[in-house]
Order: sequence, then structure tokens, then C-alpha cells
Amino acid sequence: MDIKAELNLRIQEVNSILEGYLPESTGFQKNLIDAMNYSVMGPGKRLRPIMMQETYKLFGGKGKVVEPFMAAMEMIHSYSLVHDDLPAMDDDELRRGRKTTHVVYGEAMAILAGDGLLTYAFETAVKAFDIEPENKGIPKALAVLSRDAGVYGMAGGQSVDVELTGKRLDKDTLDFIYKLKTGALIEASMVIGALLAGASEDDIIKVSKAAEAIGLAFQIRDDILDVTGDADVLGKPVLSDEKNDKTTYVTFEGLDKSEADVKALSKQAIDILEGFSGESKFLVALTNMLIDREK
Amino acid sequence: MDIKAELNLRIQEVNSILEGYLPESTGFQKNLIDAMNYSVMGPGKRLRPIMMQETYKLFGGKGKVVEPFMAAMEMIHSYSLVHDDLPAMDDDELRRGRKTTHVVYGEAMAILAGDGLLTYAFETAVKAFDIEPENKGIPKALAVLSRDAGVYGMAGGQSVDVELTGKRLDKDTLDFIYKLKTGALIEASMVIGALLAGASEDDIIKVSKAAEAIGLAFQIRDDILDVTGDADVLGKPVLSDEKNDKTTYVTFEGLDKSEADVKALSKQAIDILEGFSGESKFLVALTNMLIDREK
Repeated sequence: MDIKAELNLRIQEVNSILEGYLPESTGFQKNLIDAMNYSVMGPGKRLRPIMMQETYKLFGGKGKVVEPFMAAMEMIHSYSLVHDDLPAMDDDELRRGRKTTHVVYGEAMAILAGDGLLTYAFETAVKAFDIEPENKGIPKALAVLSRDAGVYGMAGGQSVDVELTGKRLDKDTLDFIYKLKTGALIEASMVIGALLAGASEDDIIKVSKAAEAIGLAFQIRDDILDVTGDADVLGKPVLSDEKNDKTTYVTFEGLDKSEADVKALSKQAIDILEGFSGESKFLVALTNMLIDREK
Repeated sequence: MDIKAELNLRIQEVNSILEGYLPESTGFQKNLIDAMNYSVMGPGKRLRPIMMQETYKLFGGKGKVVEPFMAAMEMIHSYSLVHDDLPAMDDDELRRGRKTTHVVYGEAMAILAGDGLLTYAFETAVKAFDIEPENKGIPKALAVLSRDAGVYGMAGGQSVDVELTGKRLDKDTLDFIYKLKTGALIEASMVIGALLAGASEDDIIKVSKAAEAIGLAFQIRDDILDVTGDADVLGKPVLSDEKNDKTTYVTFEGLDKSEADVKALSKQAIDILEGFSGESKFLVALTNMLIDREK
């Protein structure tokens, strides 16, 4: 499988779904809508919606009910980046090689664009009821989406990360931050895909474990790249975490152990994915690619 | 009817429902949870959840399915105040006589507390499915909640308000801001109450019109109080809008016309409410009280 070509096809598909769900640039609030769309339509990896769709297919899903949730997930991911980049948070001026939202639209509009995207994510996900009103997975998927984006998920992880920046962290706290800050949305993506396809409770537990391993591997790879990467490839300043004096997995475990852990976690996830009867080739290839990615 | 005593009873009931739904102050993210709870549990009027519950009862609603939506609505209202008060927005240090969230918890935590509350609002509203899984009004209520909080509701209105601060507004723009910024959540509150009680489409259109009139009257009263009020009574600095050089309904229409419009809009809403066969006495008394309120 040519994973890069396959991935590009899927990125294009996600972008097309996203464009269909994003608000039209018109009306008195046009500037807010433009700031929201600017934040979402950068050259993103679309990892979360792609993993959601693949997991949906893995369990036999064949409809379009997953699409509003795919769009919603990417909107939530994008809102979190807009708010993380704000001067009061990480104060980053570049993201994916482009100026961050607050640099282009100002701080007030960036706060509102994040709020708008987060709210529009739920407005979009709820449209799943119009597509399959009787799908019993929708209420559960909405519960997972909101829980894993919120205080018991991404926002909770981000709050501890922000609070403890520059302080010595113990392993438990670091694990908590990584599980919630990056892990929660990746786990939610795969679990929502499984829920909407009607997967069994046992399979959802397995999916959840695979997703947790992938999420942690992805976060550790991000930390490694922040130390070893190149600004041209990454699209953001190298050592931006170090500049802000942050403790990461790498400062805690060292580069070699971090590399080894990425590999072990990826194997753990792949073993679970290959154990399902459905088609998991793309998900496995994607997980392998995450190990070797340069950005 | 002793409306003040009745209102206080209902405020206590809303506070008790809210406390039941708010996250427990524990875990690594305790500080975020404390900032969220601080933002919600101030001495608020709880106008929106009270109007939701009353409209639910007006159409014969007798269950608890409305409660998670009541809590969600107040969380959304609270998040909007936290973000509006931020230095990059209105830069207010006092709200309801208390220090604003960013003054107490810092700017980064205030941004996250707003994000956390907005997300937790949806996490909470979705719990309505656990109470009445077959209630056909829940998906519609979720759609209304997200639409009226977002780019086509409160956030959209706020963005235009922020953008045009200090600029001369025409009447259409002012109407747009008021309809969306304050009006949308009040309208959503009453419409959600009606939807969850199974009201007819015709009745929902009427409720929507009454709510729109109440929302506008409420906003105009707020502007009037900002000119004529007393800081001890209001709990925020008088002329805070004027300090920020904002055009309001009062600077546009003058005090006398503003007073007359509040009265006309209230009458319009009351006529609709009294036309329903259900019990509307409290809603009518509340609307009347909004005309004469001093804070």
C-alpha cells in the first residue's frame, strides 16, 4: 500500500466533507466566520477524522452518519489549536507554516473563533440525527465527543499542562496530561467511529485501548520532533516547548527511551487492530507512518 | 403573586440543579474545575434556566428531562461572561459584585474555564437521553442550543459587537447584535422548554416571538441601567459601556424612546404568553419585573 498516496486521498475527502459543513462566509458576522474557516482550513493532517472514518468502516459502517462527526472532531481540534496559540497561553505566531489566527484576526476575534468552532462542532455533530434518526450510537457518540473534549478530556489535560509549565512534573502528572491533552480526542475519534457503526461493547473497549496507545505514541513523537526537528519541515519554530520551559516526555525519559516507547506503543495498537475481522490495513499503515513521521 | 419571593425559590431550585450537574472539585484538573464552578456559582439571576423550566411547564412538561438543559444553558451563559470579561475583550474586573474569573484565576485559566464550561454544557445536555431516551424533542433541543449559542446566535452577535466597538452603527447592525448577543439564548431557553414538553410547531413559533421580544426588552433595560444605574446596586462599574466607547440602544434611540420600547416589547410578549391555555402567571410576572428591575 502506498500509504502517502492513500492518506492524501483521505485528506482530500475530509477537506471536502469539512467544506460542506463549515458556515458560509456571509452576513454581519462574516469576519468571525472567516476567522473560523481560516483556523480549520490550514494544511492539517486530518488524523482524527480519518481515524474515525477508518474505524467506522472497520466495523462495517457504510453510511454518511459519520461525516458530521468527522467534521465536528476536526473543528474541535482546530479550536483547541487557536486557543492554545493565544498570547495568554503558548503565544505562538506560526502554526502549520501559517500565521496563527490571533496574528491575522486579532486576539478578541481568535477567542471568539475558537468559541465559534467549538459550538459549531456540536451544531454539526447533531446533524447526524437528520441522516440516521434511529442510529442508537448517536447519543453515545455525542456523550463521548463532549466528554473527551472537555474537563475530563482535552481541556482538562491542557489546563494541567498550562498550570505546571516550567515546574518539575512527576510521572503520574505527565501521564495524565498526555492521556487527556492529545490522547482523549484520538481515542474519542476511534470510539465514535465504532459506536456509529454499531460495534459491540467488547470491541469498543479494545478500540479504546488501541487508540490510547496511538495517542500516546503520537504525543511522544511530537516531543521528539520538537527537539530534533527542522523548522522548515515542522512549520513551527523548533524548541518552541523548550523556549516556554516545558517539561515533556523527552526531557523526562530521554530521546532513546522515548523512541523505544513510540515503537512499543505502536506495536500494541497494531496487534489489537489486526485482531479484528474487518479491514484494518490502512489504519495499521497509518499507525506505522506515525512512528516515522518528520512533521 | 409575590414575584420576588417566587423568583428566589426558583433561583434556589436552579442553583441546586446546577450544583448537581457541575463537576466535582477533585483530580489533577481541580484548578480548572474550581475556575469553572466559580464562574457559574456567582449570584446570578438564572433568568434563562428559569424561563426554560416555566415554558416547559406551560406546555404540560412534568419530568426532569429539562434539568440537564437548564444547567447547560446557565453554563453557556456563564462561559460567555467569562470570555467577554477577558482583557482582550471588554477587560472587566468586576461581575455581579465579584472579581471576574481571569482576575482570580489568571487569563489562561479563564480562557480554559470558558472552554470547559461550553463543552461541559453539551456533555450535560446530552444526559437528557439517559432520563427520557425516547423524547423526540431532545435532538431538536440540542440543535437549538448549539445554533443559538454559536455563530448564528450569541457568539455571532458578540463578534459583531466587539468588531464595531467605538464605530457608528446603523439600526440594522444594532438590531442584529441585540437579537443574537442577548436575544438568542433567551429565545433558545424558551423554545427548548417548549420542545422538551412536546409543544406544537405553531406554539413554538409563538414562543419564539415572545422570547425575542423579552430578549430585546431585557437588553435595552441593561443599556438604560448602564447609564442611569448605581454601582452598588449593579455590582459593576456604571458607564462601563460608555468607558469602552460603545454604541448602545440608548445612545442610538435616547432614554425616553428606550423606556417606551421596553414597555411595548414586554406587552407584546405578555399578550402571546397569556394566549396559551397553560399556566403563564409566573412568566408574565417575571416579564413585568424585567421592566422595572434596577440591576
